[in-house]
Amino acid sequence: MTDFEVLRALHVPSDTKIVHLVLDGLGGLPRELDGKTELEAAPTPNLDALAARSQLGLAVPVRPGITPGSGPAHLGLFGYDPVQYDVGRGVLSALGIGFDLQPGDVAARGNFCSIDEDGLITDRRAGRIPTEFGAKMVALLREIQLPGIRAFVEIVKEYRFVLVLRPTEGQTLHANIHDTDPQKTGVPSLPARAQDEASEPTAQLVNQWIAAARVILKDHHPANSLNLRGFAKDPGFPKFPEIFGLKAGAIATYPMYRGVARLVGMDVLPVAGETVEAEVDTLRAHWPEYDYFFFHIKKTDSAGEDGDFERKAEVIAHVDEAVVPAILDLDPDVVIVTGDHSTPSTLKSHSWHPVPTLLWSRYCLPDGHSEFGERACGRGSLGVFPASDELPLALGHALRLTKYGA
Amino acid sequence: MTDFEVLRALHVPSDTKIVHLVLDGLGGLPRELDGKTELEAAPTPNLDALAARSQLGLAVPVRPGITPGSGPAHLGLFGYDPVQYDVGRGVLSALGIGFDLQPGDVAARGNFCSIDEDGLITDRRAGRIPTEFGAKMVALLREIQLPGIRAFVEIVKEYRFVLVLRPTEGQTLHANIHDTDPQKTGVPSLPARAQDEASEPTAQLVNQWIAAARVILKDHHPANSLNLRGFAKDPGFPKFPEIFGLKAGAIATYPMYRGVARLVGMDVLPVAGETVEAEVDTLRAHWPEYDYFFFHIKKTDSAGEDGDFERKAEVIAHVDEAVVPAILDLDPDVVIVTGDHSTPSTLKSHSWHPVPTLLWSRYCLPDGHSEFGERACGRGSLGVFPASDELPLALGHALRLTKYGA
Repeated sequence: MTDFEVLRALHVPSDTKIVHLVLDGLGGLPRELDGKTELEAAPTPNLDALAARSQLGLAVPVRPGITPGSGPAHLGLFGYDPVQYDVGRGVLSALGIGFDLQPGDVAARGNFCSIDEDGLITDRRAGRIPTEFGAKMVALLREIQLPGIRAFVEIVKEYRFVLVLRPTEGQTLHANIHDTDPQKTGVPSLPARAQDEASEPTAQLVNQWIAAARVILKDHHPANSLNLRGFAKDPGFPKFPEIFGLKAGAIATYPMYRGVARLVGMDVLPVAGETVEAEVDTLRAHWPEYDYFFFHIKKTDSAGEDGDFERKAEVIAHVDEAVVPAILDLDPDVVIVTGDHSTPSTLKSHSWHPVPTLLWSRYCLPDGHSEFGERACGRGSLGVFPASDELPLALGHALRLTKYGA
Repeated sequence: MTDFEVLRALHVPSDTKIVHLVLDGLGGLPRELDGKTELEAAPTPNLDALAARSQLGLAVPVRPGITPGSGPAHLGLFGYDPVQYDVGRGVLSALGIGFDLQPGDVAARGNFCSIDEDGLITDRRAGRIPTEFGAKMVALLREIQLPGIRAFVEIVKEYRFVLVLRPTEGQTLHANIHDTDPQKTGVPSLPARAQDEASEPTAQLVNQWIAAARVILKDHHPANSLNLRGFAKDPGFPKFPEIFGLKAGAIATYPMYRGVARLVGMDVLPVAGETVEAEVDTLRAHWPEYDYFFFHIKKTDSAGEDGDFERKAEVIAHVDEAVVPAILDLDPDVVIVTGDHSTPSTLKSHSWHPVPTLLWSRYCLPDGHSEFGERACGRGSLGVFPASDELPLALGHALRLTKYGA
């Protein structure tokens, strides 16, 4: 049996409730001043008090040493081994901008690029044109009308966009198609070449679309051509509610996280605004309806990526004050506080460091560390563990799994 | 994707440098005097200072409870799961004596044995003849000349030798051949029986060689016969530089470690002598050329196998003084200090105990334990982890892996 088969066979109905509080990019590194990380430096009386009643540990998002993107990192938190459950780049890009991707769609990342008179690429990023320029080009590309092609084009940022082909009546699209980006300058773009026979017709449609797009872009240097990469479809993963026996609600304000939650079959709940207070309101409003809540905080990661230690610590302190007590007031059965990955402000980027994690339930054996921080978690009884273990652990602590074997 | 495929897809060029310092058989057990292990008892001011700035943990060489041989233990350190990447005994024996094994060669372990007039084995180890006696028999066996057989015979120790068959022009040899050793006395040796059709011709050649060998040995009781075991070829593993994107140099004075390093595609660097000082000279001389250095210390293991607690502690103290500062002076980006396995002097042998391990980089989150020892490592934030995770962790800390997914 696979691990999912085991969990499917064991989960039982229950009215216990699990809250998975994810502070994006939570893990950090020490600042020079006092050798403390963002989480260690932030005043977090509520998390510290909860830690004293909890088990602590360090979660490995993907594999040791691997820095995860947001998509794979969240799949791990949702119980899916992100190496086994690989989502294509095109799909992640579409989810990242909140595109309503349908199961039969083929999505690709697009880059505007510059070419010379001979069609050789001179700049793979079109001189990093501003987003408004890219958006104008996208508007032009939306005019393309070709028989048998239903295409959506959406700007991402600067020179980056997403192309989605949606099947027309009776059509099936396939995504095993090579990138057109040759990954270097001084050479022409490659054609969209199928990697298997089933993908041939889709590759032909893509090439027709590219040809039409290049005619349109011809006079718009530096964005006078484009490349497509990471062709992918919704991978059709087994769904979260069915594997874990949990009716799952996702509370997140950013498209990527809402998208990944939807990809695994969670209900994405409406949030009135982008504040954590609005997210708490959503949690309260939907509390009776769901067994499991994914509660996502974005701004820890944004502050880390900006290299702003103080702001990241402030976001953490604010979550401690405005979110943690509100969750506990609802009397949940299991609370996990973690991150999807680390984003140390000293690195200004996602990193490979394992993520401080706290698990509380009535049935956990508290470690007795009265602080929630990287070093305390490094001494915790959860040890260093794969992030994809969090869901099964939560199910156990929620008394939602029956005995394995007799 | 496999984990190696993930790493291959993620590694990026960099000029960072990794040093993997391996004290063979480093892990130990407490002596009665003061309850300290060899590593805990040895004065190691430099390792202790480094530990205070590092993460600590305990590395499991193969699997919990499994005592590894040197070959599998080093494969683990080099990032290869030793259960998945199994090297045949014959190959390990050939590597252990520094034999220049070629990819098409078939290697087997040989044991001289004693037989009676009826050909029944009376002693499977030929009365543990001294090495000189074994070497004389090996010299006799080298005289064997048979059509279609190109054989090398090398003494290992006492009654043990290595037989290597090298393909002649147009010949392909196969190694799926059963041992001839019946593993008991009072019975005759078994023929070399092929386990698959492809190995039939090779098995026939082996049997011809054995027949000729027995004629030669007939009058040399107690070594009047022989058995062959562990037929194997170079397994053709994916190569270290290609998986991890590291130009790798191995610094080791003993054949086994040089052999395993060569097997995975490292460059084995010349060392002028057998001292650790000579090894340090090699490290300095080749510093600009390589991204990764495997730096092997043999004498910790030898002292442990001799049951000499004091000498093992002295070797550790000498490495602390003569090697550790020299490595740090070169300004590496990542340093891992570990062992391939434990060799407690109280056990006088390799053991299954996980191995004290230290990881330092500019981006590690120090645990704050100011001592490098088994107990300190047992409280470290690396936890208890597979030794084969060390390479991916080192790559992360060396900023040599790009993000997984978006």
